[in-house]
Amino acid sequence: MSERDSQDSPVNQWISYRPEIKVMDCTIRDGGLMNDHGFADETVQAVYRACLESGIDYMEIGYINSRRQFPPGQFGPWKHCVESDLRRIVGDNDTALKLSAMADADKSDYREDILPKSESVLDLIRVATYIHQIPLALDMIKDAHDKGYETSLNLMALSTVPERELNEALALVARSEADVICIVDSFGSLYTEQIDDYMETFLGYAAPAGKAVGMHAHNNRQLAFANTIQATIRGANRLDASMAGLGRGAGNCPMELLLSFLHNPKFHLRPVLHCIQHHIEPMRDALKWGFDYPYMMTGVLNQHPRAGMAFNESSDRGDIVKFYDSLEDPD
Amino acid sequence: MSERDSQDSPVNQWISYRPEIKVMDCTIRDGGLMNDHGFADETVQAVYRACLESGIDYMEIGYINSRRQFPPGQFGPWKHCVESDLRRIVGDNDTALKLSAMADADKSDYREDILPKSESVLDLIRVATYIHQIPLALDMIKDAHDKGYETSLNLMALSTVPERELNEALALVARSEADVICIVDSFGSLYTEQIDDYMETFLGYAAPAGKAVGMHAHNNRQLAFANTIQATIRGANRLDASMAGLGRGAGNCPMELLLSFLHNPKFHLRPVLHCIQHHIEPMRDALKWGFDYPYMMTGVLNQHPRAGMAFNESSDRGDIVKFYDSLEDPD
Repeated sequence: MSERDSQDSPVNQWISYRPEIKVMDCTIRDGGLMNDHGFADETVQAVYRACLESGIDYMEIGYINSRRQFPPGQFGPWKHCVESDLRRIVGDNDTALKLSAMADADKSDYREDILPKSESVLDLIRVATYIHQIPLALDMIKDAHDKGYETSLNLMALSTVPERELNEALALVARSEADVICIVDSFGSLYTEQIDDYMETFLGYAAPAGKAVGMHAHNNRQLAFANTIQATIRGANRLDASMAGLGRGAGNCPMELLLSFLHNPKFHLRPVLHCIQHHIEPMRDALKWGFDYPYMMTGVLNQHPRAGMAFNESSDRGDIVKFYDSLEDPD
Repeated sequence: MSERDSQDSPVNQWISYRPEIKVMDCTIRDGGLMNDHGFADETVQAVYRACLESGIDYMEIGYINSRRQFPPGQFGPWKHCVESDLRRIVGDNDTALKLSAMADADKSDYREDILPKSESVLDLIRVATYIHQIPLALDMIKDAHDKGYETSLNLMALSTVPERELNEALALVARSEADVICIVDSFGSLYTEQIDDYMETFLGYAAPAGKAVGMHAHNNRQLAFANTIQATIRGANRLDASMAGLGRGAGNCPMELLLSFLHNPKFHLRPVLHCIQHHIEPMRDALKWGFDYPYMMTGVLNQHPRAGMAFNESSDRGDIVKFYDSLEDPD
C-alpha cells in the first residue's frame, strides 16, 4: 500500500501491515450455495482447523435461514446452523477464531432461530439484504445486537443500486447497531475504480459512526482478489475470502491469494494450502465453482449469475458462444 | 476510468473510451512457451481470424529466435517465424491487423533472420530483454527500425530490477528508436499499486520522447487483468492479452476479459469466444496453462515460474504443500 495514497486513505505502507484488518473465511457459507450446504462434517472440520492454524479471524460456517422455507433433508445443516450442528464441529470453540453465521432478509426466522449469544458458539451475525429490504435488515441487526452478537449488514447486488437509494440506505445503517457495513459485489461486475468510489461513499457514512467497512467480492471477471486489495487500500478492514475461492458461480476472493498479500505475521499460508489440497480441490469436479466464461458474461452485464449457473448445469455447458448469443438476444 | 484520476492521468471516463489504446494478441507467441511453439496451422489460422474479426490491433505470431540455438524439428515454426511459414497462415495479410514477432536478446540471429520490412508481412518487432542485455537490445531495436519496422522494447522480469538500474535503462531506451516501451511482469508478482509506480516511472521517460508505454501481465496472482486495467488507467496504450489467457505457466491477461472492459466499439467479443471454444479450450488438458498454486507461490516470492512448471510436470503435481515446503526450505 503506497505512500502516495497516504493523503487520502488510512494506509501508507507496502511492507508493513495494518493490524486492524480482520479476515473472514466464508468457504462453507458461500461455497454451500453450490451444494445446498451439504458438506460432510469432515470438510467443515477441516476448514475450521485450517482457519485456526492460519490465524484467520472469523469463519462463517453457514446461514441461519428458515427451516420452513428450506426444509432439512432438502438442504444440508449449514443452511440452518442449528446449535447442536455447530457444536458437533467446533465444540465450545474455546479459541481465538470467531464464528459467524449469515441470515438472509426475508429468508430467516431470525427471532426464533438466532439464540441469545450466551447460548451459542456464534460471535457474529451477518445480515444479507437487498436494497428494498433495508428496514427488515435493520430489524434483524437490532435483534442480533440485542441478543449480544457482533453484527454486520451486507448490502448485496450493490452494483445495481442507484446512488440516491444507496445514500439513503447508508444513512440508515450508520444510525443502526451494525458494527460493520459490507460491500457485496454479488454479480462480480465491479472493477477496481468503482471500488474506490464505493469505499469513499461507504466510509463517508461508516467512519463517523465508528463502524468498519467490509468487502465481499466475486470472481466473475477475475477481479475478486484485485478488488479486495483495492478496498483494503481504500480503508476496508473486514475482508471476505474462501479457500480456493470456493463460492457461488465464479467464486470468491481466494484465501490463499489474500493471505499471501497481507503481511501480518499472524497469518500462515501453509494450513490453507493443506486444506485446499486435501479437502477443497477434491470437490472441484462435483461443485464446479470458479471463473468460467458464462459467469464472466453475466458479470460484464451486471446480472445475477443464475443464467450462467443454469447453463453450466445444462447439456450446453461449454458452448459459450451459444450462451453469449442468448444474452445478446434474450427474446 | 474515473473523473478523479483526471488530474494525474490522461484518462477521465468510465463509459467512453481512449481511441489510442491498441490491443495485441499474444496467444501463439506466449502460449507457444507451453508447447515449444508447435501449434497446428489450423490453430494459428483460427487465432488470426479471431483477431481480424474482433478488431484486435496486433497479433504476435511467434518468435524470431535462432534456428541454431532452437533447431527446427525440436521446435515448431512459431519459434522462428520464417517468412514462408508466416505467409502460409496470413497470405499477404492485406488487412488492418498488424503482425508482430518477438526477438529475444541473446537468442536471436536478428541481423540475418529479420528481413527488411519490404520483404515481410510483419509490421512490428518486439525485443525482449533482461536488464543486463539492454545494450544488445538497443542494437536489435536499431536493426529492426532501420529495416523499416515499428519497434517495442519489452523489459522482462521488471520486478527484480533495482530502481537505479531501471532509471538508467529507461533513459537509454528513451533516446533509442523504440516506438514502445513495454512493462513485462514476467513473474506475475506485481500488484496494482506497484503498477501505478511503474507507470509513473515509465511514462516519465517515454512520454517526453514521444513513445507509448505497454503492459504485458502474467496471472500468477490472478492479477493479470487487474494490472492491465490499472496500467491502462495510468496511461498505458499498448495492451497485451491472449485468448483464454493462454501463455506460460499461469498465463496472460485474458483477451475476453480485456475486450469486455474496453469500450471502443471496434472491438467484438464473440469471435474471441468462438476461437476459445473451438480451438483454445480443447488444448487445455494438454497444455495446462492458467492459474495454479505453484505459480501463485513463485509469483509471491518474485521468482521465475520454472520451478512451478517443473513441479507441475512431475508426478508430484497437486501436492501443493510439498511444493510450498520446497520453496520455504530450498536446501
